[in-house]
Amino acid sequence: MNFHERAVFPRGFRCASRNVGLKPSARDLTLFASDVDAAAAAVFTRNQFPGAPIILGRETIKGGVLRAIIANSKVSNVATGERGVENARRMAASAAAELGTEAGKVLVSSTGVIGVHLPVEKIEAGVRGMAAELQDDPLVGAEGIMTTDTHPKALSATVGDATITWVAKGSGMIEPNMATMLAYIFTDAALDAATLDRLLRRAVDVSFNMLSVDTDTSTSDTCVIMANGLAGAVDEQAFCDALVAGCVRMTEILARDGEGAEHLLRITVRDAASERDARVVAKSLVNSPLIKTMVHGADPNVGRILMAVGKCTDVLISAARTNAWVNGYQVVGNGTRLEFDDTVVRAALGVEVVDLEVSLGVGSATARAYGCDLTKGYIDENAAYYSS
Amino acid sequence: MNFHERAVFPRGFRCASRNVGLKPSARDLTLFASDVDAAAAAVFTRNQFPGAPIILGRETIKGGVLRAIIANSKVSNVATGERGVENARRMAASAAAELGTEAGKVLVSSTGVIGVHLPVEKIEAGVRGMAAELQDDPLVGAEGIMTTDTHPKALSATVGDATITWVAKGSGMIEPNMATMLAYIFTDAALDAATLDRLLRRAVDVSFNMLSVDTDTSTSDTCVIMANGLAGAVDEQAFCDALVAGCVRMTEILARDGEGAEHLLRITVRDAASERDARVVAKSLVNSPLIKTMVHGADPNVGRILMAVGKCTDVLISAARTNAWVNGYQVVGNGTRLEFDDTVVRAALGVEVVDLEVSLGVGSATARAYGCDLTKGYIDENAAYYSS
Repeated sequence: MNFHERAVFPRGFRCASRNVGLKPSARDLTLFASDVDAAAAAVFTRNQFPGAPIILGRETIKGGVLRAIIANSKVSNVATGERGVENARRMAASAAAELGTEAGKVLVSSTGVIGVHLPVEKIEAGVRGMAAELQDDPLVGAEGIMTTDTHPKALSATVGDATITWVAKGSGMIEPNMATMLAYIFTDAALDAATLDRLLRRAVDVSFNMLSVDTDTSTSDTCVIMANGLAGAVDEQAFCDALVAGCVRMTEILARDGEGAEHLLRITVRDAASERDARVVAKSLVNSPLIKTMVHGADPNVGRILMAVGKCTDVLISAARTNAWVNGYQVVGNGTRLEFDDTVVRAALGVEVVDLEVSLGVGSATARAYGCDLTKGYIDENAAYYSS
Repeated sequence: MNFHERAVFPRGFRCASRNVGLKPSARDLTLFASDVDAAAAAVFTRNQFPGAPIILGRETIKGGVLRAIIANSKVSNVATGERGVENARRMAASAAAELGTEAGKVLVSSTGVIGVHLPVEKIEAGVRGMAAELQDDPLVGAEGIMTTDTHPKALSATVGDATITWVAKGSGMIEPNMATMLAYIFTDAALDAATLDRLLRRAVDVSFNMLSVDTDTSTSDTCVIMANGLAGAVDEQAFCDALVAGCVRMTEILARDGEGAEHLLRITVRDAASERDARVVAKSLVNSPLIKTMVHGADPNVGRILMAVGKCTDVLISAARTNAWVNGYQVVGNGTRLEFDDTVVRAALGVEVVDLEVSLGVGSATARAYGCDLTKGYIDENAAYYSS
């Protein structure tokens, strides 16, 4: 699929962002708005300590209709009890008042430190006047939700007469604290909430749900889609294909920008007995600190690939049929490490995008997972996050 | 339990170690021997790509009798196919010939790089004459099996008239490559193989199996116990208690010496609905990169504790009843982060042994897990292991 060279919004969507005093000077509050009501669906973190915006969001999305999203960075409003939920409601109400809609049509997101109360007055004061600042560049909205991201993230693509736009931040499960994954998808295609829900779950399943930066599951993860219908009906299959492709591409962008990351790591597992098995092995590899440090150091220590496959003790594996490749170069044959030229493997591991492929040789199922290398930058960012 | 100030062997056990040319100059081959046949039991890695010594060891231990253990460092003899198993057999035969016993009574261990063939001729030549060098200091044996360990590891304790001695290396699951966990336990108590097997499994379950340095499961993990009976019968309960206490203490020593580690991290989970739940939550915390970096930086970012509890999506949790403590200082009350003095929590995290305690408030089951912090030293050691 071709993405636009510079991301644009679908018809009827705009955004604004501001600094309202949560961060010293960077933008910390974003408003996304549709000119008309939009059908909507969302998926949220499965963490058992969900943030207040997730608790409220599960209630809001039941209506299947959204007009706007308001999101702040710096404070995640998690582990803040009843007062936290009340603050999330006040945040929705302030955006609704500014836009002339109902609070029940505004989705709230917060990303930042866990366990600190939201300075909700700053947000209520700060949102005033933002309706007049709504503009057409999705990157402006992406900027207001950044935490440890090194750049704002937006994509868009055309499907028939419609446009799909993705705006996201953070690096998946990398951090529950200042790098929560938030992904917002906007389209002017006409699709109802039930269809959106089905398509969104299908797309998330092979994209954001296969992303791991560090195995830790955020308390605030949110992925929401809004369809305002201004472009009319679209071919559902074409829309679905585009939705999946954009979610996968955004997943790659998030993985590459994982905290401290210097490489995008893609793991493809083929010939598994079931899709579940393929997913488990792909996740085992993408999460293994020893695979991640091998990639980081471009160290051709490929025996680690077999270790990470073999530690999946409940997956059907035939050791004698297992093969593996590093960027297309075979390093394991029939379960045994091949004699290879270290220089070639070192070079294959040294490029920015590293593809590791494993064939289990026991079936025909496939899965792909997305992650990044483990670097000292990760430790720097996470050993003093609260304090810095 | 009191451990001896300096580890000694039980009656009838001795060891020797040498450099036989696998490493440039450090000791790389160890022989442990009993003067008489010993009842024996063992547990091995569950990794589906077990090393050749594991494949052979599972066969050997079926006899329930061992006379000796031969172990080399530097090359793990994993992913080496049929030739690997044949080399492991030759290694057992060479030790048996040197000691005047049968190859079927010699357990073999290898630890080191995966996928490289064992230089078995060096081992066969090197073992000759080692019988004459057998001596009484367990640390000499511990030295020959070191890889990334920063010090040799041995413990001993008295139970009735008998002695139990633990010799180990590596840091559990930290590395499948050069830090495989090997733990050898020797006793002169008279216990049969079936009893040893039962007691060993019980002890391993709450000690080595609750150790994690980096979530990666070695292809060579081995824990074996030999009882030569020279001290006669002992009280089984007293023996079991001592066995558990020594395995737990050795687990702590291995965790503290995890690659790059600067802290021993102990996680205690209380008031869980089941022991399985308590273990899952304890492992989730000990494995979380964000908990590990929080400890490393002594950063009082304790919201991460709730994140790591909450990501156990299949564990019964009552958010409103969850409490947590850092070295005895309460930081989470009823699922909410408490207002606390940062300086106190920072100090509690800054000591060498950090105890994190979580009460789930839904039952009465308990579990404890052992690990370490995540540091730049880990990345240095693992980004260039093969190459250096």
